[in-house]
Amino acid sequence: MNRPVIAISMGDPFGNGPEITVKALSRKEIYERCRPFVVGDRSSMEYACKVVEAVCQIRAKIHVIRDISEALFTCGTIDLLDLGLVPEDQYPVLAVPEADGDSSSPDMKSPEKKPVPAPLGIGSTPLGGEAAFSYVVKVIELAMSGKADATVTNAISKEAIHMAGHDFSGHTEIYAHYTNTRKYAMMLAHDDLRVIHVSTHVSLREACDRVRKDRVLECIRLADQACRAMGIVRPKIGVAGLNPHCGEGGLFGREEIEEIQPAIDAAAAEGICIPDGKPAPPDTIFSKALGGWYDVVVAMYHDQGHIPLKVKGFVYDREKKRWDAVSGINITLGLPIIRVSVDHGTGFDQAGNGQCSDLSLVSSIDYAIRFARGTVLCPDQP
Amino acid sequence: MNRPVIAISMGDPFGNGPEITVKALSRKEIYERCRPFVVGDRSSMEYACKVVEAVCQIRAKIHVIRDISEALFTCGTIDLLDLGLVPEDQYPVLAVPEADGDSSSPDMKSPEKKPVPAPLGIGSTPLGGEAAFSYVVKVIELAMSGKADATVTNAISKEAIHMAGHDFSGHTEIYAHYTNTRKYAMMLAHDDLRVIHVSTHVSLREACDRVRKDRVLECIRLADQACRAMGIVRPKIGVAGLNPHCGEGGLFGREEIEEIQPAIDAAAAEGICIPDGKPAPPDTIFSKALGGWYDVVVAMYHDQGHIPLKVKGFVYDREKKRWDAVSGINITLGLPIIRVSVDHGTGFDQAGNGQCSDLSLVSSIDYAIRFARGTVLCPDQP
Repeated sequence: MNRPVIAISMGDPFGNGPEITVKALSRKEIYERCRPFVVGDRSSMEYACKVVEAVCQIRAKIHVIRDISEALFTCGTIDLLDLGLVPEDQYPVLAVPEADGDSSSPDMKSPEKKPVPAPLGIGSTPLGGEAAFSYVVKVIELAMSGKADATVTNAISKEAIHMAGHDFSGHTEIYAHYTNTRKYAMMLAHDDLRVIHVSTHVSLREACDRVRKDRVLECIRLADQACRAMGIVRPKIGVAGLNPHCGEGGLFGREEIEEIQPAIDAAAAEGICIPDGKPAPPDTIFSKALGGWYDVVVAMYHDQGHIPLKVKGFVYDREKKRWDAVSGINITLGLPIIRVSVDHGTGFDQAGNGQCSDLSLVSSIDYAIRFARGTVLCPDQP
Repeated sequence: MNRPVIAISMGDPFGNGPEITVKALSRKEIYERCRPFVVGDRSSMEYACKVVEAVCQIRAKIHVIRDISEALFTCGTIDLLDLGLVPEDQYPVLAVPEADGDSSSPDMKSPEKKPVPAPLGIGSTPLGGEAAFSYVVKVIELAMSGKADATVTNAISKEAIHMAGHDFSGHTEIYAHYTNTRKYAMMLAHDDLRVIHVSTHVSLREACDRVRKDRVLECIRLADQACRAMGIVRPKIGVAGLNPHCGEGGLFGREEIEEIQPAIDAAAAEGICIPDGKPAPPDTIFSKALGGWYDVVVAMYHDQGHIPLKVKGFVYDREKKRWDAVSGINITLGLPIIRVSVDHGTGFDQAGNGQCSDLSLVSSIDYAIRFARGTVLCPDQP
């Protein structure tokens, strides 16, 4: 059997993670390609099952396991390693129509009988932060010990993580810490647009400070390795500038001259293919990547890379006041284990109403499978 | 006759401006809706006519005028106010087939006879910078004196402008200076995605410094006024944060708390509609705008706004190594005159080969017409 074991962290218990996970793991094709299980809380997952059933008429059962050896890996039954951190009374009572006692067709039921799940409206809490943090640490542990072939993470709230007393600015940093990794980078992907980031969750001022030759070179190398791991034989790498128009020859900003160009020259000397040979203007590099000119773009800061990805992958519905599509995924490069994540937040405003899209989680699981199947993310990593 | 007079500056004589202008002004529908003329150089425009004829089989004549009263405003004849700054010998000799002497059908001509224009490959020069600068100053003067109803600008090279000894970082700053305007902002538009910028051609570090309450409030007001001038009754304004995730409550960056939120509160107190009531995360605000949630977005720096616009409007062709489409336009708000500009650079690499797209210039002329027809850009401007 060549179905990799995928450990999925549930995300913030009061965010969209539980519902999204129930929706994604109700798709048969996922079980045909991998063996997924969830690390989270029974209370959250059972509440999410009720919500998803009420809204989407998708029925799933939670199967609590103590060890992965107990998992069934069968669609319709979601295997859950229950950390037991969130009490049941944190969720409202949501009555669902009796399934066995009601044999009438759906059309016969009066609409009044259907429960209408409402947003939880809980937001960031120390309890949610502590629980979400614990799930992440657990999936890392399982992957590090070889019990899972890859990990996939749902959204967490950095504010909640901080409220719980953990000084990490995001998933990436938690993974780096618990896998003892120094050289890593975040790569986002939407279809064939792939972007790796020199820095992520730091202020824009600090992001400017972090544009240093060594770090840019490190990211170029990680980007090259990741593309090769995905089967791209000679990856073409675009390297963005930091300043508008790349600073126009030093007129506004000198990072392109002092830090980025030297990194590009060093990478080219190692045989890495950077077709431009110089930093590319940040406002057109992504259009060129979309046109196939690059296989991956090295972005100098979080939003430089996130904006184009989300413009392509996110679709907002004004009438329904919600996201219709949130595709796009997030991969941490440089780790000794595989980590893919959804590329959206906890959606606290809407969490609990059953409307959230599972597209990003489905894509994340798909990418995790691709990486787990015999590819090594960073073969040259010391 | 309700066709506004539009003054078009030719842009850098060694960039794509001359060719693009010839292409755009060969479209009949433009003359049906406005009376356009060009401020530039005869040598450049005549060379561009040859290039465009050779590559696109579009024939246009240059009609040199000394005053607008001499203009013909007829499609096929491009009225040009010739500043006589660029000598003819700056351009290569480009033989075109004799038009009158050759009565055979195009299919009968042997392909060898056709001249193949090549990129000029001249780039930024003091001569080009001085000329481009002079055209801009002239169109401003014509609009300020009421001889033109609106101005449209082709691309200039900031490097060339500096080489020529002019200390301006872009068109916007030249316009502000020569119209004596203190409060202004750059708005970009592509279809219904409109973005106004708190700062433009400054380093990213300086852009962070420029995120101040007063300036953000000024931009919110300009955005509101511009949308109203375009006929949007109650514009919905999205205000982006500066830092990733809006700084997550101060964890990484405090500009959202200290500068942007106070500006939003002040604008809301003036009755301006900011549906979120707070800064929106920079990486999703544009997807929401594209979904119709905002009529305009206030971006905190150049690339924050330019990246999503160009991801939508620019299409790159990998095979041909050139832009297939470069739509999107640039409007300076807050000026006493109307100024719309193409939203791409001089394209020095390709300029002269006749391949450049005139889509952005056509859109710019269209927007200029819309604004010139009885709308006032900033009615509340003191």
